Amino acid sequence: MLIRALTLFRRAVPASRFCPCATGRTQQYCTSAKNISIRDALTSLDTGSNIRIRGWVRSVRSQKNHLFLHVSDGSSLQPLQVIANSDLNIRGLTFGCAVDITGSLEKSPSQKQKVELQAQRVEVVGECDPVDFPFKIKERHSLEYIRQFPHLRCRTNSFGSLLRIRSEAAAAIHSYFRDNGFVQIHTPIITSNDCEGAGELFQVEVKNPHFFSVPAYLTVSGQLHLEVMAGAFPAVYTFGPTFRAENSQSRRHLAEFYMAEAEISFIESLEDLMKVMEDLFKTSTEHLLSQCAEDMGLFHKFISPGQRVRHDTLSIISYTEAIDILSRNSEQFTFKTEWGCDLQTEHEKFLVKHCGNVPVFVTDYPYDLKPFYARDNQDQPRHTAAAVDLLVPGVGELCGGSLREERLELLKTRLARAGLEDTYAWYLQLRQFGSVPHGGFGMGFERYLQCVLGVKNIKDTIPFARSSRSCLL
Amino acid sequence: MLIRALTLFRRAVPASRFCPCATGRTQQYCTSAKNISIRDALTSLDTGSNIRIRGWVRSVRSQKNHLFLHVSDGSSLQPLQVIANSDLNIRGLTFGCAVDITGSLEKSPSQKQKVELQAQRVEVVGECDPVDFPFKIKERHSLEYIRQFPHLRCRTNSFGSLLRIRSEAAAAIHSYFRDNGFVQIHTPIITSNDCEGAGELFQVEVKNPHFFSVPAYLTVSGQLHLEVMAGAFPAVYTFGPTFRAENSQSRRHLAEFYMAEAEISFIESLEDLMKVMEDLFKTSTEHLLSQCAEDMGLFHKFISPGQRVRHDTLSIISYTEAIDILSRNSEQFTFKTEWGCDLQTEHEKFLVKHCGNVPVFVTDYPYDLKPFYARDNQDQPRHTAAAVDLLVPGVGELCGGSLREERLELLKTRLARAGLEDTYAWYLQLRQFGSVPHGGFGMGFERYLQCVLGVKNIKDTIPFARSSRSCLL
Repeated sequence: MLIRALTLFRRAVPASRFCPCATGRTQQYCTSAKNISIRDALTSLDTGSNIRIRGWVRSVRSQKNHLFLHVSDGSSLQPLQVIANSDLNIRGLTFGCAVDITGSLEKSPSQKQKVELQAQRVEVVGECDPVDFPFKIKERHSLEYIRQFPHLRCRTNSFGSLLRIRSEAAAAIHSYFRDNGFVQIHTPIITSNDCEGAGELFQVEVKNPHFFSVPAYLTVSGQLHLEVMAGAFPAVYTFGPTFRAENSQSRRHLAEFYMAEAEISFIESLEDLMKVMEDLFKTSTEHLLSQCAEDMGLFHKFISPGQRVRHDTLSIISYTEAIDILSRNSEQFTFKTEWGCDLQTEHEKFLVKHCGNVPVFVTDYPYDLKPFYARDNQDQPRHTAAAVDLLVPGVGELCGGSLREERLELLKTRLARAGLEDTYAWYLQLRQFGSVPHGGFGMGFERYLQCVLGVKNIKDTIPFARSSRSCLL
Repeated sequence: MLIRALTLFRRAVPASRFCPCATGRTQQYCTSAKNISIRDALTSLDTGSNIRIRGWVRSVRSQKNHLFLHVSDGSSLQPLQVIANSDLNIRGLTFGCAVDITGSLEKSPSQKQKVELQAQRVEVVGECDPVDFPFKIKERHSLEYIRQFPHLRCRTNSFGSLLRIRSEAAAAIHSYFRDNGFVQIHTPIITSNDCEGAGELFQVEVKNPHFFSVPAYLTVSGQLHLEVMAGAFPAVYTFGPTFRAENSQSRRHLAEFYMAEAEISFIESLEDLMKVMEDLFKTSTEHLLSQCAEDMGLFHKFISPGQRVRHDTLSIISYTEAIDILSRNSEQFTFKTEWGCDLQTEHEKFLVKHCGNVPVFVTDYPYDLKPFYARDNQDQPRHTAAAVDLLVPGVGELCGGSLREERLELLKTRLARAGLEDTYAWYLQLRQFGSVPHGGFGMGFERYLQCVLGVKNIKDTIPFARSSRSCLL
């Protein structure tokens, strides 16, 4: 019989693949020792137990007859202290090498950690030449320095913490939406929509130029596709990559970045929309502060000392009120502060400071500044649309949203004026068949991380940064 | 004071925006009625309560002095039955229109549903011309037919169910990885890696041809980027879009599709890897069967009658055993069944059937068939690599994975032979500094949905399908 039921771990395999131990003495630890993550080891109460850990050496110190190692496996910022007898005579034990260690987990006499590992076997499974390795023991490398090594920077404490936090933040965003009844929609990356006015586009090419039979671009936003879904679900969201081909070297822009976007059916006021934006921001931040306390602490201690995100109070001002505030301080700005002008980064920063360095909603922007889909407030003489931005300390614009124009005739007129009636015939049909009031917003994920961590450069918040003149790996 | 604390819902707003009711009589229901989703209404025990629901009409039936409506808001497949007095004289109440209804939730006398809504107010908020609307009342439209309307097909029962299931399946995959200590990594979409041999690539262009200073492509897999992370974490995963520019009209291929990919450090056998693949498959499927019973039922009843995914038993055979089986039946195949040839779809389907129509792992493929990163088994005369595919009923290949070549010298030799030593200098460095045994796999998300739902065409498993000659919206 060739087919076997899947009885994993029980299937006989050559010992040489399972046990890297060289000697009979150590083999007994290898087979009886329990594989355990360093995170679990650090909080284990099971002292005296035989465990096996695998990870990378963060420090080596020799003292009398003992070697003191700090070993990390990426499951936590804090490493596990390992104590080995010098006469184990371990070859290649340097900063950065990979090790496989078995031993006894013991209560530590030191205040610095609760437990430590008394090693019975230390094996170096992957050496690391300290001369060639770009990171050096005991040196604190700057974020700028480690950015040069996109394939290695995850091995530093700071970027390891960043990636754990990023992963938890993504999970928090998904949880928030799911817990509140949003259906997740994977909006497309390649799209034939080309004129949403959200910035310069990447075009997608292939050897066969007629592959898609229409010009195809990388998405700048999933909003219009979410609006399709707002015609069938109470609430939907997407959380994925979006693209802007802007030739910018700014600290706040990437060519490829992540956005969480939501669209809510039957919503009738900006207040209802702001409540969701606020909830998402607060819930995610509280999640991070409780679930990633140690990693967050590293940023608040070493990267942005004194930085604490204040998410208890948020302010709301209208665009018109914002212009009033800015106009009274117009001498401080390079750009105009007249009603009808777009808010620039300098203005956004001023408004945040003016409101006490807390997140600030700015509502009801001039109608002519907003894209065709923003809902007409039908006010005058200052004609506004029901759009809202959320500005946050250190970053400026974090979220942008609006009620959408659900009224067929108003939308048709506006699209016709822009000459887009044919291009968006499908979008008009959404209003023709069972149209409902709805609204939504997008939140820049990397900017969110910049805001809560106090990271100055957005390139330090994403595993592999893409920007003008930079596409490493 | 221009700045106000955010006191949402308490801020005074014009009544005209909050209450769409026209008369004083109905207004009282609107303000006292509780907004509730249809899913919650259907399971509510609070009969006699005043509620407000909003959704789309799925059927209208007139009987004596009453109108019977089925209203759906996308929160569940099952609609809510609404009973309204004919003399409410509601304009525009047709299949597909959007309604806002208040009334009293009552125990239903019928067996078909537990509760129904006795309407006191029915307002049509968005009309729907039944002549122009491409879907007709009481007709069951085929998946092929609704595929022509990517902006409207979410309004059908079948595609609504698909999207809820897809959302839950995505959540199940994220949960599985998170619960098992995997760190989520957003691997890049735009990449300068161009020669992984995984198929035809999309190139990314921009007006400024030197935007990235190197040719840039859409990713075909996040694996190499995950391997970067396998040098710092115990386990990592990515779950996002990947791209193939294949000019295929197959039922199993998309130009843009989603993959869940995992990479596990310190893994030393294909058995350990298969255990994770099996766990992911089983855990997700069990989640769907328990959380989406009603929606799954629609597929198993109407789309693929009799289809049940069997995930209780899985088989394992080696590639060499597979070739033996196929060779004994070679007359049934178009393609060769010799040792050294790749398995074709016809072979995969045969193997699945041969093993009793259950998922089948095929292990240890010929070394020369596998990419440079697959781990050399160093066997002979039949030289194999530690690679594994998971084949499933109805689909064929669902997952592909391998142990990765962690030994610097072996990898260097192989890359040099392929002339790729310079291109992958960064990848070699991963093995130079603290290399560890590791392995991983990718699972096609749409194929997974095809498999568990019995959907024949992959285009019917994704919100907006992209394939050769098709990039609508």
